[in-house]
Amino acid sequence: MRFKILHEDKFSAARIGKLETDHGVIQTPVFMPVGTAGSVKGIHQRELKEDINAMIILGNTYHLYLRPGIEVLKESGGLHKFMNWERSILTDSGGYQVFSLSDNRKLKEEGAVFQSHIDGSRHLFSPESVVDIQRIIGADIMMAFDECTPFPCEYSYAKKSLNLTHRWLDRGMKRFLETEGLYGYYQSYFPIVQGSVYKDLRIISAEKIASCEMDGNAIGGLSVGEPAEDMYAMTEVVTDILPKDKPRYLMGVGSPVNILESIALGIDMFDCVMPTRNGRNGMLFTSEGIINIKNEKWKNDFNPVDANETTFVDKYYNRAYLRHLIISKEILGAQIASIHNLAFYIWLVREASEKIRSGEFTAWKENMVEKLATRL
Amino acid sequence: MRFKILHEDKFSAARIGKLETDHGVIQTPVFMPVGTAGSVKGIHQRELKEDINAMIILGNTYHLYLRPGIEVLKESGGLHKFMNWERSILTDSGGYQVFSLSDNRKLKEEGAVFQSHIDGSRHLFSPESVVDIQRIIGADIMMAFDECTPFPCEYSYAKKSLNLTHRWLDRGMKRFLETEGLYGYYQSYFPIVQGSVYKDLRIISAEKIASCEMDGNAIGGLSVGEPAEDMYAMTEVVTDILPKDKPRYLMGVGSPVNILESIALGIDMFDCVMPTRNGRNGMLFTSEGIINIKNEKWKNDFNPVDANETTFVDKYYNRAYLRHLIISKEILGAQIASIHNLAFYIWLVREASEKIRSGEFTAWKENMVEKLATRL
Repeated sequence: MRFKILHEDKFSAARIGKLETDHGVIQTPVFMPVGTAGSVKGIHQRELKEDINAMIILGNTYHLYLRPGIEVLKESGGLHKFMNWERSILTDSGGYQVFSLSDNRKLKEEGAVFQSHIDGSRHLFSPESVVDIQRIIGADIMMAFDECTPFPCEYSYAKKSLNLTHRWLDRGMKRFLETEGLYGYYQSYFPIVQGSVYKDLRIISAEKIASCEMDGNAIGGLSVGEPAEDMYAMTEVVTDILPKDKPRYLMGVGSPVNILESIALGIDMFDCVMPTRNGRNGMLFTSEGIINIKNEKWKNDFNPVDANETTFVDKYYNRAYLRHLIISKEILGAQIASIHNLAFYIWLVREASEKIRSGEFTAWKENMVEKLATRL
Repeated sequence: MRFKILHEDKFSAARIGKLETDHGVIQTPVFMPVGTAGSVKGIHQRELKEDINAMIILGNTYHLYLRPGIEVLKESGGLHKFMNWERSILTDSGGYQVFSLSDNRKLKEEGAVFQSHIDGSRHLFSPESVVDIQRIIGADIMMAFDECTPFPCEYSYAKKSLNLTHRWLDRGMKRFLETEGLYGYYQSYFPIVQGSVYKDLRIISAEKIASCEMDGNAIGGLSVGEPAEDMYAMTEVVTDILPKDKPRYLMGVGSPVNILESIALGIDMFDCVMPTRNGRNGMLFTSEGIINIKNEKWKNDFNPVDANETTFVDKYYNRAYLRHLIISKEILGAQIASIHNLAFYIWLVREASEKIRSGEFTAWKENMVEKLATRL
């Protein structure tokens, strides 16, 4: 995996770069649509490529491990082949879902024991097994197994958890370095900074993670309910320490505003379920602000979904129609809103790149942040 | 509306024709995907046109009347504009849904009083109001308001119901002839033969319907649970009477086998929810037989969904992946299966046309019927 910074902003820590995996070149900053269980919900792979132009998508190790399961994924030749996606894939480590979705989970030094939310079966995720699973999934970028602390989180717990996450990281890295990809291409392994909202813990963690000298680095445990100021403050503390010449991935973030602010702090990679999940519920992100399409005011609005077209659905369908579909719980409503929102997110980070290149990023961002948060 | 028979089969009553509405030319026999509430579930209009190549779709008056409602449809300029579908649309009369979906419905001479299944609000559908509603929806082909008798149905009830349906037809035709389309194009009006599984009633009804001299004629009240032999027998009785030079539409039919057998009896138009509804549940229709994709046997089958590709999903996705999506209730599973099944239905009737043209229809049909019913 190669990463090259192409341009740095003079007025912020923002930068644009080029990340190269064996499945293609990714311009950064980049937004990665979430393809939970091998599918970005409601969207054909063809649309992801041709309409949304996603260069990399995310898969959830927890979901994929439970269904279809690693035997099927291995026999198919990995997730790329299984789902017919030739571009890059990043997988998370499953830790987040173990704590948010599974039943009876129990943290031990060895790893996390949990029951499947689907059939109640018992499983263990360890730092080593999660590397093995991601080797089988075949993600271009694998993530270290960590504990993502909730918010709020006591200092003492955050510290104890961080130490465990660091011990797990050492074990996971060992396994990573001892093994190779199964399908003939390179897989990288990103460690994750934790430390909740405590600056000193974040510093300790960022230094530990920086010292690993992996291909890229991630920041976890943010966007879990803390105030946005805390999120930005922690991100800034960490990006100051993480190596400049490696991509920085802020996990699970966030709203369009969160993304622009984090780009300004030097983040290169993002993922979030917000565009698809909120889209399915009728929330549209546009360059003029947020539309709740269920609102009565759109009932007779036959204008395009988004006049500032970022993809085909924006002008193909009108607002009254989309409102009708969402209210009637028609599948097509979820499809349209998801395509629109993902294409908008990807347009937004691409636009940010252009502005970084032209030196206008900070002024543009201030203006956009105000518009993006407006309720239309 | 123009209809022209292009070729008649020598060995059966099958024929191919060309039906022309102000929204385009439709080759018959034709299968019409069901777009219940202004959307063929899980499918973009672009896919309907470019991948599935549907020339006409069906809308349900009952659903559209309740949501988005006729005010919105009128203001949008009709359903074609509302949903951005430039090809032809046929709407049913709402009668079937009033009896199968709504609460507390009550049949009166005037019409049917019912409560919405969505919010319990009370409504009246009359032969006249249903013409008015379909004028507002703007369907190219409107259907008469009838009572679709259930199966089984006592002879006395079937007879009484038939008489009501005929009185309603006279009223509906009167309203049809007194009114015009709202949007500058022609709308036709098809009467519907009823009579349950009673030959004498079907004959009476077919003669009544033939005498109306409308642009096309429909057969209703079949495929409601009666044995297939009864369905074919009633269809044959009726097609012998209905004018040859008008299109014949067999409502709500059916499985691929039902469709081929009915084409042999002289039917030109079909609609059915089976390809989409069964598809969402994991049933795939193929030229080799029926696949229940949830079956364990497809778990590690990485072959294309259908090697006899009728549309892009067939080779783009593999069976194990589709199985995983359907079992995991991923939206994309429903999308893939629906596109496949609709494209297959449309391929099947197109193929039937070719065989009629080349004189091979009957032999081909016998062979296909056997294959189509096979469980793979």
